Amino acid sequence: MDELELKGSHAKRAAFEAAALSESEKNKALERVCVELKDQASFVLEQNARDLEGARSSGSADAFLDRLALNPKRIQEMVDGLEQLILLPDPVGEIIGSWRLENGLSIRKQRVPIGVIGIIYEARPNVTLDAAALCLKAGNAVVLRGSSSAQLTNLALVAVIREALSKAGLPIDLAQIIEDPSRDVVKRFLKLKSYLDVVIPRGGAELIRFTVENATVPVLETGAGNCHIYIDQGADYDMAARIVLNAKTQRPAVCNTAETLLVHKDWAGEHLQALLQALSAAGVECRCCERSQALVPGARSATEKDWETEFLDLILAVRVVESLEEAIAHVNRYGTRHSEAIVTNSAKAAERFMQGVDAAAIYHNASTRFTDGFVFGFGAEIGISTQKLHARGPMGLTELTTYKYLVSGVGQIRS
Amino acid sequence: MDELELKGSHAKRAAFEAAALSESEKNKALERVCVELKDQASFVLEQNARDLEGARSSGSADAFLDRLALNPKRIQEMVDGLEQLILLPDPVGEIIGSWRLENGLSIRKQRVPIGVIGIIYEARPNVTLDAAALCLKAGNAVVLRGSSSAQLTNLALVAVIREALSKAGLPIDLAQIIEDPSRDVVKRFLKLKSYLDVVIPRGGAELIRFTVENATVPVLETGAGNCHIYIDQGADYDMAARIVLNAKTQRPAVCNTAETLLVHKDWAGEHLQALLQALSAAGVECRCCERSQALVPGARSATEKDWETEFLDLILAVRVVESLEEAIAHVNRYGTRHSEAIVTNSAKAAERFMQGVDAAAIYHNASTRFTDGFVFGFGAEIGISTQKLHARGPMGLTELTTYKYLVSGVGQIRS
Repeated sequence: MDELELKGSHAKRAAFEAAALSESEKNKALERVCVELKDQASFVLEQNARDLEGARSSGSADAFLDRLALNPKRIQEMVDGLEQLILLPDPVGEIIGSWRLENGLSIRKQRVPIGVIGIIYEARPNVTLDAAALCLKAGNAVVLRGSSSAQLTNLALVAVIREALSKAGLPIDLAQIIEDPSRDVVKRFLKLKSYLDVVIPRGGAELIRFTVENATVPVLETGAGNCHIYIDQGADYDMAARIVLNAKTQRPAVCNTAETLLVHKDWAGEHLQALLQALSAAGVECRCCERSQALVPGARSATEKDWETEFLDLILAVRVVESLEEAIAHVNRYGTRHSEAIVTNSAKAAERFMQGVDAAAIYHNASTRFTDGFVFGFGAEIGISTQKLHARGPMGLTELTTYKYLVSGVGQIRS
Repeated sequence: MDELELKGSHAKRAAFEAAALSESEKNKALERVCVELKDQASFVLEQNARDLEGARSSGSADAFLDRLALNPKRIQEMVDGLEQLILLPDPVGEIIGSWRLENGLSIRKQRVPIGVIGIIYEARPNVTLDAAALCLKAGNAVVLRGSSSAQLTNLALVAVIREALSKAGLPIDLAQIIEDPSRDVVKRFLKLKSYLDVVIPRGGAELIRFTVENATVPVLETGAGNCHIYIDQGADYDMAARIVLNAKTQRPAVCNTAETLLVHKDWAGEHLQALLQALSAAGVECRCCERSQALVPGARSATEKDWETEFLDLILAVRVVESLEEAIAHVNRYGTRHSEAIVTNSAKAAERFMQGVDAAAIYHNASTRFTDGFVFGFGAEIGISTQKLHARGPMGLTELTTYKYLVSGVGQIRS
C-alpha cells in the first residue's frame, strides 16, 4: 500500500469516528491545538526558516517569500483564528427537516460531516492549520497536499495538530499530509475516490484548472474572481468613485477585487474623465475601450484578453456600455461568477442587475470586496466557491457538511 | 462552431432568459408540452417503432427492448407526470435566508436555477421528457445526450418539447439534444465547462464511471445502490422477513433493492434457516458466508466480489456477523452510500446504526425500497444522488437549483 492508499484509508477510518464526536470533544481538541501551537512555536518557526532559506536560494520572488513566511505575529493570528472557531456553533447533528409520510414512515433530514476532505494548496502555511481546524470542527478528516516549498513548515504544523489530537484523545488521522513531493502523486491524489469525498483546491487559476482537469473526486472550485463594477446612468459620482477605488485598490491581489469597470454612456459623458483621473492618481493603470480612451489621452487600449483577465494587480479594464442590458451581458460573458456590483440610484435597475447577473454575490451600492466568510458573518471560511453545486460564495462550517435521511418505521414495505 | 459549442452557447443564452421566468410562464409551457405530446403521440410512436426495429435487428435483448419501447399507456404516463409536475411549487426565487451586517449591508440568500444542465442517459426515452420538464420547471436549460438506439424517439420527443416552448413563447433552446452519435462527442460533452454547469448521468454503473472519469464539468453521481439490510439480535421474525423479501423481490432491478443481508449471529441461530427457505421459495438465489451456508445445504458460497456487487437481480449475498458494529463496518466498507436498513426492537441499536452508517437514506424497521423522490414527497425525481456534495438521496426540483447572495448597501466600502 502506497502513501496515498494508506493515508486515505486511515483518514476514512478516522472520519467515521469523527462523525460521532460531540461539539465539546471537537472544541477541546481545538483548544489543545492552540496550546501545542504556542508551545511549539519556535519549532514551527525553525522549520519555516529552513523552507524560506530553500526558497530564497532557489531565487523565489519577494511576494512568494512573504506568503511563505511565518513569524510570531502570524502564529498568534493562527491561534486567534482557532479561538474564534471554537466559539462557532457546530453544524453537525442539526435536524434540517422532518416530516411523516402517509404510510406512517417518519423522515428526518440530518446534517452530517462530509467525511474525508482533500485540500490541495500553494505555499501559504496558514492554510495547513486553518483548513485542518475547519474540517475538524465540522467533523471531517482532512488530507492535505501543500507546496513542496512549504513542506517543512507544513509537516511541523501537522505534527502539532496530530499531537494535540492525540492528547485530546481523538484519532490523530483526522489530520494528515501527503509527504511524497512528486507531481504524479497529486494526479493520483485527485483520483482517490475510494477515500476522498471532496477535494478543494486553494490557490491560483492554474492550480484550480489542474485540479478540475485531473480529478475524479468531486471538486469544490474556489477563488477565481474576474469581478465587475457597473456604474449606471444617474449614479452618484462620489459613491461610485468611492466604491470603484475601494474595490480596485484596497487589496488588489485578492479574488474579490474589481477587474473591469463598466460605465453607462450617459454617466461616462459626465463623470468618467474625473474617475479615470482619480484612479490614475491612486496608481491604477486603466485599459480602456475606444470610447473611454478618448477621455484619457494616452490611455492604453483594452484588448479582448483584458476583459477576460483577473489582473490581481493595480490594473483595471474600462468599458463604456450603451445600457444596463449591455452591462449584464458583458458580466455574464466574461465574469467568473464570483462578485459583481452595480452603482445606481434606481431600485429597478438594481433589481434587474441582481436578477440578471449570474454570480455568487451581487452588490447594489457596495464594494465587491465584502465577499468573505468572516464579513458575511460565517465566522470562518474554507474558500469562496465559484461553482454552482453544493455551495456558492463564501464557504464556512455549514458548507463542510452534507446531510442524510433517517427514516423510522414499524415494518413498512413498498407495495 | 461544432454542434456541442453551438448548442452549448444556445443553451446558455436560453438559461439566462429562463432564470427570469415566472412560475405561471413555466407551467403554461409544461401544459403546452402535454397538449403537443398528446397531439403528436402517433408521430412519437412511429419514430419509436423505427428505433425498436433497429434494436431488434441488431439483436438486442428483450429487457432492453422493453425499456426502449413506448406505447399509448407510457405516453399517458408521461402526460400524467407532467401534470403532477405542474402542480408542484416552483422553488426559484425563494429567499432562503436574510440578515443585516453591522455596517448596514443587507444580505439576501436567494434560490436561483443552476443554469445549463447536461443529462447523459441510456435507452429509456421517458428520461428525455421527464428530465427536460424537471429542468424547465426549475428554470434551467437542458442539453440531452441519449443512447443512439433511442435517437429517433428522443428527437421526436425533443421536437415536441421545442414546439411547445415555441408556442408558449419561451426560448426553444431550453431543450436541446445532441445529434452526433459518436462516442467521442460524449467525451467532449463532459468537458463543456464554458456552457454546462452540471452533468447528471442517468444509467448503469458503467455510464456513471465513464462520466466521472471524463468530466471536467461538475457531476451529480446517481444511482448505484449496493444496499444492505441488517437484522439485529432479538428482531421480530415476521417483520424482518417481510422487509427482506420486499427489499429483495418487489422490484429487483432498481437501485434501492437490497443486495446483501447481514444477520446477527444470535438471530441467525434461531431464524436464518427459515428466512433463507422463504427467500428460496420466492426465487431468490442466496450466496452465503460460511456460517449461513451451514444452515442451507447446497447454498452457494459468497465471494469477496459478491459483497461488492449490485446484482439488480434475484440474488442476495448473506452474511452472519458477530455484532452491530461488525454490521456497520461491513456496510461502510462495501456500501455505495445509497440506502441501508436495520431491523431491530432496540431504539439504541437503531440510533447507533443510523448514526454510524454513511449513506443517503438509513431505515429503521422499513424496506430500503422507499428511497424515491415521489415516495419522499418531493413530487418528482431527477435521480438519486450517491455523492455527498450538493444533494444526497432523491433529488427533486429544489436540488436542481442553487442560490446567490444579493447584497444591498448605501455606498459601503471595505476598510
